[in-house]
Amino acid sequence: MLTIPLIQIGFGGVGRAVVERVLDARDEFEWRMGLEFEYVALCDSAGAVIDQNGLSPGTLRRLLEHKRQGRSLAESEVGYRHEGLLDIVDLAGSPEAIVIDVTASDDTVPALQLALDRGYAVVLANKKPLAGPIEVFREFTGSGRLRYEATVGAGVPVIATLQEALLASHDTVHHIEGCFSGTLGYLTTGLEQGVAFSQLVGQAHAMGYTEPDPRDDLGGMDVARKALILGRTLGWPLELEHVEVEPLYPAELGEGSVEDFMNAIETLDESYRQRVQAAREQGSVLRYVASLQGSEARVGLQTVPQDSPLGRLQGTDNLITFHTEVYNETPLVLQGRGAGVHGTAAGVVADIVALARCRK
Amino acid sequence: MLTIPLIQIGFGGVGRAVVERVLDARDEFEWRMGLEFEYVALCDSAGAVIDQNGLSPGTLRRLLEHKRQGRSLAESEVGYRHEGLLDIVDLAGSPEAIVIDVTASDDTVPALQLALDRGYAVVLANKKPLAGPIEVFREFTGSGRLRYEATVGAGVPVIATLQEALLASHDTVHHIEGCFSGTLGYLTTGLEQGVAFSQLVGQAHAMGYTEPDPRDDLGGMDVARKALILGRTLGWPLELEHVEVEPLYPAELGEGSVEDFMNAIETLDESYRQRVQAAREQGSVLRYVASLQGSEARVGLQTVPQDSPLGRLQGTDNLITFHTEVYNETPLVLQGRGAGVHGTAAGVVADIVALARCRK
Repeated sequence: MLTIPLIQIGFGGVGRAVVERVLDARDEFEWRMGLEFEYVALCDSAGAVIDQNGLSPGTLRRLLEHKRQGRSLAESEVGYRHEGLLDIVDLAGSPEAIVIDVTASDDTVPALQLALDRGYAVVLANKKPLAGPIEVFREFTGSGRLRYEATVGAGVPVIATLQEALLASHDTVHHIEGCFSGTLGYLTTGLEQGVAFSQLVGQAHAMGYTEPDPRDDLGGMDVARKALILGRTLGWPLELEHVEVEPLYPAELGEGSVEDFMNAIETLDESYRQRVQAAREQGSVLRYVASLQGSEARVGLQTVPQDSPLGRLQGTDNLITFHTEVYNETPLVLQGRGAGVHGTAAGVVADIVALARCRK
Repeated sequence: MLTIPLIQIGFGGVGRAVVERVLDARDEFEWRMGLEFEYVALCDSAGAVIDQNGLSPGTLRRLLEHKRQGRSLAESEVGYRHEGLLDIVDLAGSPEAIVIDVTASDDTVPALQLALDRGYAVVLANKKPLAGPIEVFREFTGSGRLRYEATVGAGVPVIATLQEALLASHDTVHHIEGCFSGTLGYLTTGLEQGVAFSQLVGQAHAMGYTEPDPRDDLGGMDVARKALILGRTLGWPLELEHVEVEPLYPAELGEGSVEDFMNAIETLDESYRQRVQAAREQGSVLRYVASLQGSEARVGLQTVPQDSPLGRLQGTDNLITFHTEVYNETPLVLQGRGAGVHGTAAGVVADIVALARCRK
């Protein structure tokens, strides 16, 4: 039996789903894989609950319950420490440790760096550390001890397929195309059905499918970061500013409050209606596509044939097509739910297990 | 740099493609992964060319050329030995070795067993060893040193996704459905387009898309073995005779010569035409589907909604849908070329690299 200490940074929706999944799988990990995972630190933005002997399942479940009630880790009765992340990694770590970053912040980079320097492994659901300067991407991924499945397509094994099925088998990737945003998939499916753009954005916003400011989705930057991570995984020397991004609203609507924005988007309805119509006349549909080819990445609304994997995609699923030397006549295609706490947590746990198995 | 000795059993189309791929990727493996692969034995049905110091790239290329000209390994001028497989594994092996089985035979089982007992790793494109008695499947996979991606869907990462994305993340698989035969995909697509069954079988046979006796494809046993391997990977205690198989021809056509069979299948055209028509009236199409649910596996012609992943599949691609706890509203779907020497060789090489990386 190998015991792997876990240090988790972030305890929001995904963070809680990861802890729950690790707890629920305890027996299976032990009996089927000979692995035991022990949380030694659980961090939020202000500090951490730490126990070098491992937080007990009972304590973890109390912290989960506590958090569900909307309270912070610091308010828990379990010894919370206000140290910074670097100190926590130092305090809690051991060479077999795995550090899990389920935040959405750049601030974790120094702690992840320290963890890798110490020989720990790292699992990211957080895209930011891999979407900053390329030197950080290269150093982190070059360690051979970092996995980041959940950064693209949540639990859909996009990164594993690219790295372990395609690149490792010496296939040559010519071209990647994909839809990596459930929210934008919902929008383009609605547009195709004749619903007005403003109505779709209003609905998605009201139902909480978008960020509080829907421009954070409609601007395409989240998709651009995913395209960047894929391009860099292919070995391309890309920076985020090299990714050509077409936002779904004109620059002048980028200013002002969310309310202003929501009131103004009706002015876009007619032009979207026309684009959908023009696409339909060519047997095509609009999709918000990330496209990687010839060392360049583009993200934007594209006209794709209705009768193609991207054209047939409906609703909020993610889809990726790999056009390669081996998959030349038809691409290798992966499709599935690419967002949500459970899918993302599943991607994180798959990475934890992959790293742990390799350490056995 | 870690040097991994390779012992390959089988030097047909897939076997040659594996050797070529390993040779072509030498630099990349060395520089990007710090791995060096060295063929210490290359076996065919009667013996092997062995060099414990590693067959040089030049020698390997000579053997490839030699084989392309239709000659056997034994006729090569490189020291061929007529030992049996057990002796060859003994002669050539070392604990870091990886044994690759790209035959289509049961006869390799004792040699694979010996290799695993000695601590070597094993990669299978050969389905037979995993489709025999379940004890062998359990012993082989239980070693943690066996990979078998290419046995289902060639290079499409079906097994890796099931094991490493779904099972390892503690997702629960409720139901798997897939099309795992390019030949039968070609047939059902043709039937949908109104072509007669006998004409499709005749064409596929003439173009070499089927086995020499097309009943070997139409009987469904190859698909049944893939379903069996998936079911066993899920942990189900299945035997091949438990897989319910619907052949595409009636039992009475199972007797007699290939010529008799080809002459008789016109009698099936009308009944297939009617089945296609009946399906169409319900908005459905026919697909040759492997279906796993509730610890049971079935393989046969099924009516599936036209507007579903399986219904939209056209031509010879393979497709698999995983319906799980995480992928509950829409399944996780993988699609791609599931046959051919290059896809299969890519699956084998991906497995070799995965095993080698874990040994680093």
